[in-house]
Amino acid sequence: MKFSRARLAKELAEKAQAYTASVAFDRRLYRHDIAGSIAHAKMLGQQGIISPKEAELIVMGLVSIREEIESGQFQFKPEMEDVHLNIEARLIEKIGAVGGKLHTARSRNDQVALDMRLFVRDSIQEAIAGLKEFQRVLLDVAEANKQTVFPGYTHLQLAQPVVLAHHLLAYFEMFERDVERFRDCLARSDVLPLGSGALAGVPYPVDREFVAKELGFARVSRNSIDAVSDRDFVLEYEAAASIAMMHLSRLSEEIVLWSSSEFGFVEMDEAYATGSSIMPQKKNPDVAELARGKTGRVYGHLMGLLTTMKGLPLSYNRDLQEDKEGLFDTVDTLLASLGVCAGMVGSLKVNAVRTREAAGKGYILATDLADYLVRQGVPFRTAHEVVGKLVSYAAEKGKALSELTSGEYRSFSPLFGDEVKSISLESSVASRNVTGGTSPGQVERALARSREILGKSR
Amino acid sequence: MKFSRARLAKELAEKAQAYTASVAFDRRLYRHDIAGSIAHAKMLGQQGIISPKEAELIVMGLVSIREEIESGQFQFKPEMEDVHLNIEARLIEKIGAVGGKLHTARSRNDQVALDMRLFVRDSIQEAIAGLKEFQRVLLDVAEANKQTVFPGYTHLQLAQPVVLAHHLLAYFEMFERDVERFRDCLARSDVLPLGSGALAGVPYPVDREFVAKELGFARVSRNSIDAVSDRDFVLEYEAAASIAMMHLSRLSEEIVLWSSSEFGFVEMDEAYATGSSIMPQKKNPDVAELARGKTGRVYGHLMGLLTTMKGLPLSYNRDLQEDKEGLFDTVDTLLASLGVCAGMVGSLKVNAVRTREAAGKGYILATDLADYLVRQGVPFRTAHEVVGKLVSYAAEKGKALSELTSGEYRSFSPLFGDEVKSISLESSVASRNVTGGTSPGQVERALARSREILGKSR
Amino acid sequence: MKFSRARLAKELAEKAQAYTASVAFDRRLYRHDIAGSIAHAKMLGQQGIISPKEAELIVMGLVSIREEIESGQFQFKPEMEDVHLNIEARLIEKIGAVGGKLHTARSRNDQVALDMRLFVRDSIQEAIAGLKEFQRVLLDVAEANKQTVFPGYTHLQLAQPVVLAHHLLAYFEMFERDVERFRDCLARSDVLPLGSGALAGVPYPVDREFVAKELGFARVSRNSIDAVSDRDFVLEYEAAASIAMMHLSRLSEEIVLWSSSEFGFVEMDEAYATGSSIMPQKKNPDVAELARGKTGRVYGHLMGLLTTMKGLPLSYNRDLQEDKEGLFDTVDTLLASLGVCAGMVGSLKVNAVRTREAAGKGYILATDLADYLVRQGVPFRTAHEVVGKLVSYAAEKGKALSELTSGEYRSFSPLFGDEVKSISLESSVASRNVTGGTSPGQVERALARSREILGKSR
Amino acid sequence: MKFSRARLAKELAEKAQAYTASVAFDRRLYRHDIAGSIAHAKMLGQQGIISPKEAELIVMGLVSIREEIESGQFQFKPEMEDVHLNIEARLIEKIGAVGGKLHTARSRNDQVALDMRLFVRDSIQEAIAGLKEFQRVLLDVAEANKQTVFPGYTHLQLAQPVVLAHHLLAYFEMFERDVERFRDCLARSDVLPLGSGALAGVPYPVDREFVAKELGFARVSRNSIDAVSDRDFVLEYEAAASIAMMHLSRLSEEIVLWSSSEFGFVEMDEAYATGSSIMPQKKNPDVAELARGKTGRVYGHLMGLLTTMKGLPLSYNRDLQEDKEGLFDTVDTLLASLGVCAGMVGSLKVNAVRTREAAGKGYILATDLADYLVRQGVPFRTAHEVVGKLVSYAAEKGKALSELTSGEYRSFSPLFGDEVKSISLESSVASRNVTGGTSPGQVERALARSREILGKSR
Repeated sequence: MKFSRARLAKELAEKAQAYTASVAFDRRLYRHDIAGSIAHAKMLGQQGIISPKEAELIVMGLVSIREEIESGQFQFKPEMEDVHLNIEARLIEKIGAVGGKLHTARSRNDQVALDMRLFVRDSIQEAIAGLKEFQRVLLDVAEANKQTVFPGYTHLQLAQPVVLAHHLLAYFEMFERDVERFRDCLARSDVLPLGSGALAGVPYPVDREFVAKELGFARVSRNSIDAVSDRDFVLEYEAAASIAMMHLSRLSEEIVLWSSSEFGFVEMDEAYATGSSIMPQKKNPDVAELARGKTGRVYGHLMGLLTTMKGLPLSYNRDLQEDKEGLFDTVDTLLASLGVCAGMVGSLKVNAVRTREAAGKGYILATDLADYLVRQGVPFRTAHEVVGKLVSYAAEKGKALSELTSGEYRSFSPLFGDEVKSISLESSVASRNVTGGTSPGQVERALARSREILGKSR
Repeated sequence: MKFSRARLAKELAEKAQAYTASVAFDRRLYRHDIAGSIAHAKMLGQQGIISPKEAELIVMGLVSIREEIESGQFQFKPEMEDVHLNIEARLIEKIGAVGGKLHTARSRNDQVALDMRLFVRDSIQEAIAGLKEFQRVLLDVAEANKQTVFPGYTHLQLAQPVVLAHHLLAYFEMFERDVERFRDCLARSDVLPLGSGALAGVPYPVDREFVAKELGFARVSRNSIDAVSDRDFVLEYEAAASIAMMHLSRLSEEIVLWSSSEFGFVEMDEAYATGSSIMPQKKNPDVAELARGKTGRVYGHLMGLLTTMKGLPLSYNRDLQEDKEGLFDTVDTLLASLGVCAGMVGSLKVNAVRTREAAGKGYILATDLADYLVRQGVPFRTAHEVVGKLVSYAAEKGKALSELTSGEYRSFSPLFGDEVKSISLESSVASRNVTGGTSPGQVERALARSREILGKSR
Repeated sequence: MKFSRARLAKELAEKAQAYTASVAFDRRLYRHDIAGSIAHAKMLGQQGIISPKEAELIVMGLVSIREEIESGQFQFKPEMEDVHLNIEARLIEKIGAVGGKLHTARSRNDQVALDMRLFVRDSIQEAIAGLKEFQRVLLDVAEANKQTVFPGYTHLQLAQPVVLAHHLLAYFEMFERDVERFRDCLARSDVLPLGSGALAGVPYPVDREFVAKELGFARVSRNSIDAVSDRDFVLEYEAAASIAMMHLSRLSEEIVLWSSSEFGFVEMDEAYATGSSIMPQKKNPDVAELARGKTGRVYGHLMGLLTTMKGLPLSYNRDLQEDKEGLFDTVDTLLASLGVCAGMVGSLKVNAVRTREAAGKGYILATDLADYLVRQGVPFRTAHEVVGKLVSYAAEKGKALSELTSGEYRSFSPLFGDEVKSISLESSVASRNVTGGTSPGQVERALARSREILGKSR
Repeated sequence: MKFSRARLAKELAEKAQAYTASVAFDRRLYRHDIAGSIAHAKMLGQQGIISPKEAELIVMGLVSIREEIESGQFQFKPEMEDVHLNIEARLIEKIGAVGGKLHTARSRNDQVALDMRLFVRDSIQEAIAGLKEFQRVLLDVAEANKQTVFPGYTHLQLAQPVVLAHHLLAYFEMFERDVERFRDCLARSDVLPLGSGALAGVPYPVDREFVAKELGFARVSRNSIDAVSDRDFVLEYEAAASIAMMHLSRLSEEIVLWSSSEFGFVEMDEAYATGSSIMPQKKNPDVAELARGKTGRVYGHLMGLLTTMKGLPLSYNRDLQEDKEGLFDTVDTLLASLGVCAGMVGSLKVNAVRTREAAGKGYILATDLADYLVRQGVPFRTAHEVVGKLVSYAAEKGKALSELTSGEYRSFSPLFGDEVKSISLESSVASRNVTGGTSPGQVERALARSREILGKSR
């Protein structure tokens, strides 16, 4: 029995069946599908659209099908097209023709929209949990590195010294925005489409608010055509995931750099490093590389669905079936990447000697010299120029700034006093004492605030 | 004078200068740049970082530079790299060395982040206004077509009759979600980055809250490294714009279809149609085609910036300069598309005779027959099968459903009573009387609610 | 035993192992991996790097492993990371420590590059075969519709009449370009990377030309660092597949349009149509919709890999592992789409009465009138204007061009003779007698040439 | 006069005109447009479709319009829509109504296809020239660094020593593939579409082969509907450019890394470095960063046009107008990036002391030890394990391999002879003496072959 081929005399060509069947992947939605059907059946019974007895029988049947699936006894059949028809057919097999009443006042169009919304709601919760967990790890590592002097870079050139905690808290902020984006997406996903039928609404006295309540939806959809055609919530999940993966790719890139022989800032825990099939000495940051690389597939899924949706007339078109695999892979990739990278970051060994040494190289304190002159009344632009020349002079002489004599300083500006010699990595860090800055006090404040944010979200 | 080359003896190679200069496009940010500088200068003066006199002089200089630009007298120079240095150089030219004090406690890294946030904030407001205006037009056309029977499609096959108002309100809902997305993006863009300096914060007693208030920002950024590295707000704008353009591409596709000779549902007003260079009879829906086609470029800009951001180590890298042109074009494309398409939709002439005729074709009322049987107690699945066979029979005979006799009906199910003959397009539409459905009452409710939504947003 | 963790004391964290293991998908490469290993082992033996006996033993072991895999007896283990180590470990299990000699003068870096090239080579052959088969179907349908008058559209507006064969041959041309692109990609994929080692070449007297010959490669790679870092051939496959899917999406869109009630140009064979779960009358063009929709995922995979490759330093990075799943899905999607769509197109029933009728509507012959005037010496621009006015006049009167009197014609230009009344769909079609045009003779030529192209490619 | 609005009574709405007009960007095609028109006019005259006199007059008019444009006297008008109508209108203005004969046997649809093909042909030539020039630079730097010992990386971890020349020649190979891809694209672009008319061919005895010859095309298009609908050649250019930019992004990433303080392998010439607005000491690799960042926009344009083309029914649709801006920017970006990066690479100062030092770190010669054991008869897998343990031992002791005693070696395997102490960076490099390997002899061969490739292409 193929429910949907009532009018069609001929069987679907084998190739066409294989091409159109979705059960191989949409079976992943079985829990959501059954939950939706149970709520629907209860409502049908309560509204007298079917009898309460019938409703009860259907619910019992669905519950037992769920058990069959979860215990591995259920046989999904590709010739039954999709998860919906597989379950419905089994229901009729189990409880007889009355099972055929479940699909009253419903279409696969609003049914699959419901399943997808339930799935996205769950996936958002998991994404937020994964992000929060990562923030917790970042916070722990930051706490432990409040005083670890670290080179701050712009253009991957040494720029100004910071502390590692401050650097790591930048990622805390990124993930916090990711959390917010997912929350916003949740609010828009939290809408019940059931009751929209194929596209026009249903000709039965359904109680949509009841179903919404049963399934925990905040509200019901307001336009039936939109409700069956809309996949914004999938796109929005994928866009939020793309940005989150972009953040992770930046952190991964840094970890790859930091664990190189040249940087040597961190050592990868062996539980997160892999070896080489040919070079026995290797300890490779594969986890970070893969997280960076997997950013591509998540972007790709976003682009794929945007393309699929482009130019589709209303209402439901079969093209929409293409919303699933990309989403499933996006969800899996994001959650796995967050989980494993949090573990990796939490187990990094930081080499604070190397980071301090690296921060001390070059002329990283040059801005501090310019700011010194500014405090003596020199316009910033002039100070910037003076120090530029001073740095050129030092570089030519092969000297560090600290190796220059007071006389050499004063040959560039008489305003250089002896205090200039006391400018150090620590004084530089301490001087950035402004909200969001890297000074010890500000970093303490930031840590406290971050702990608070995490606390609230528990 | 090249402010930023203090240490570098050699001039930039000509090609390299042309390659790196951004003033050709970032000059668009001049208003935001000057507004930011004025607020910054006021704060410097107020905090005693520079003298109040100096601050006043700088503000006056900036105001007069803005006038020069707006009156077309300002000469932007590519050798001055970008909009920031062009304005600063002119300031020094105008008010002397004191102009060089403006850049105290600031870096181009936090300055450009500020300019971009100011620009995005404005662009979001404009996008929301454009969407609202479009909703208004949709609502007007919907009001006028509350009773226009229209074929509802799934798979572009006739499915169930609706009214045109209901169909158009689906787009109202889409645009409402777009508005919400832009609002969420606004909340996250509404953060002052100034005070983050190059990356580590600034070593001056700045008052960031004052600057935030001057510029109308809701809050100040919490981590300086993040503040100069973050372009999430640009990506989020582009993602929201991509989804909005996708919606527009669907509407455009429908308008192209509807204005074809075969559909003939609408006639394009000549003010929105173009002709052919060779075929004198043509009246082409170019506006709709272009809006559909331009979806590609907006997706492309999103993908471009996602790619650019992927794998960048913190903090600022020059790659970030690539955030601008794609954003500018996205903003322009979205606003122009919304504006012109709203005009086009508002001027469509609907051919209600054709739409009703089209809706009456095929076996569009078959679901109603199945639902009829369901109300006689037949399980939906069985009813679906019975009507499937009935339709096959009718198709073979070349008859419409209304042309079948009661006897013919009853030969498929004895439960078919004579009332079955009274099922009509109107009765079908009226029966979808559920929240979000196409029945007259529901459509009235939807119109009222939509008016309310629009009313609130004024 | 984990070959690649020789130096690493600790086991990989469970999550990290699951994250990095690729055997779940790269096992698909087992045939290519074993073929490559066999050629490598033979060469090692022949060059005396291992003894001929050892080589023989290894080859025998590999052959029997292939049989184990193909008969379903092989147990792939995720803790063995990938297909390469799974096979190597089993080899050592079977033939003892000598199996450990297979990896002499080889690294997984050049090994996986080899496997991927072998896979892409095969996939290109299949893609070309699929395209050729589709061309054959197009040619058959075109032959049968040499005289089927069909409306030619621009902007989806009636433009000029053509014959259906001519329209279908446009797709023949597109697919021919696809074939060429895949052939070009084949030429660049046809390069042996083995012998490049981890990145620097191998310190053994290998005979790369021998291995190339064994595996049918046209040449050996010229730079070892490039050879292990390069995935151009995968990108190029995906770019060619994207363009091919784009072509298919256009054809699919047309089939969706043509099988709508409004166009009614073709009827979908039931073997390729699906029904509705709720609307018994539906006959949906799901295959065409899915082919159109699946274009998105193929674009997405291209974008995904481009993103992954962006900004990777040389040589091998683990990010490259992300080349596989997207490629596999691209190959599967392209081949399945070509296969099922060819079947669908081959079984379409064309309604030549409807297409002729549609072509006769509107003012589709207006260009022919303008061309008529041109032949009387009127400049084209003037003729275009005159006919434009004539069409406006006819439209206002609600008349077809054929319904206008000679007098009416002449009121617009005295040059209109009575012959103007003999302009017909057929005469219009016949007049486009230029290479590539739609006249009967040209279409015959095009069919003959197309047959020739197909004949050659057998 | 608006040529294409003959039938349309009303003027286009202002917004709609601005939205649809393309002259702001397609004016860039003026040379190609005029060249195409001249060839077309000559042909019309020669075939007697217009008189030879008329043809001559038209050609003269066009030549003088080209001069007007090139001398800056031509006024492009947006109300004239596009470059084609601007030029045609001016022609009629200059030479009178006879100018209106130019558009005989032509449509804007085949005209713009022609212009785009001419433009793409030129752009391909320029891209190839830019790539060749870059190869020349790479070859020069490689020649100068044949003996510069350089660390070879996998996973950005030290892997095996190479010479810098070998590393740079990897990019030579990439660019060579890019050249080939552009050549293949050229072959497919080299097709004359003119003569296809609006979509169906033209009803005049045109000589397409003559026009093809005049414009240097290899052949004429074979199907008129395809010819006006096809933009494969643009997509193919953009795909080739995307891969080329990906290559450039990898090189740029390396240059950013190499010029960091931590790597210190190269020094950027000041002609290619930029400074900081706030940090006087900075010397930033902005050119490399921008080239890396601009990869995003080129990918975006590819994705944009793929999206635009998806699902478009035949033949010409206005969506196709969107092919231009993305292509123009892709061409400009690719050429500028190649040009400036070649300059940057050519002026890098390599610090051979640092690269040798870096290569000597870690246990980069471990593979050589394993290969040593293999040559003593140990299976590679066993050797790999033994050396793995040896490296762990050395790491624990904090010793370099060269610091281990023969006794220590032998405690891991009795097969270690004293020669093991003579394994050095140089011996390691020398041992990779296989086609494509890094040994001095192979690198010489590679340089010679590369010179030959470049020589041929002159």
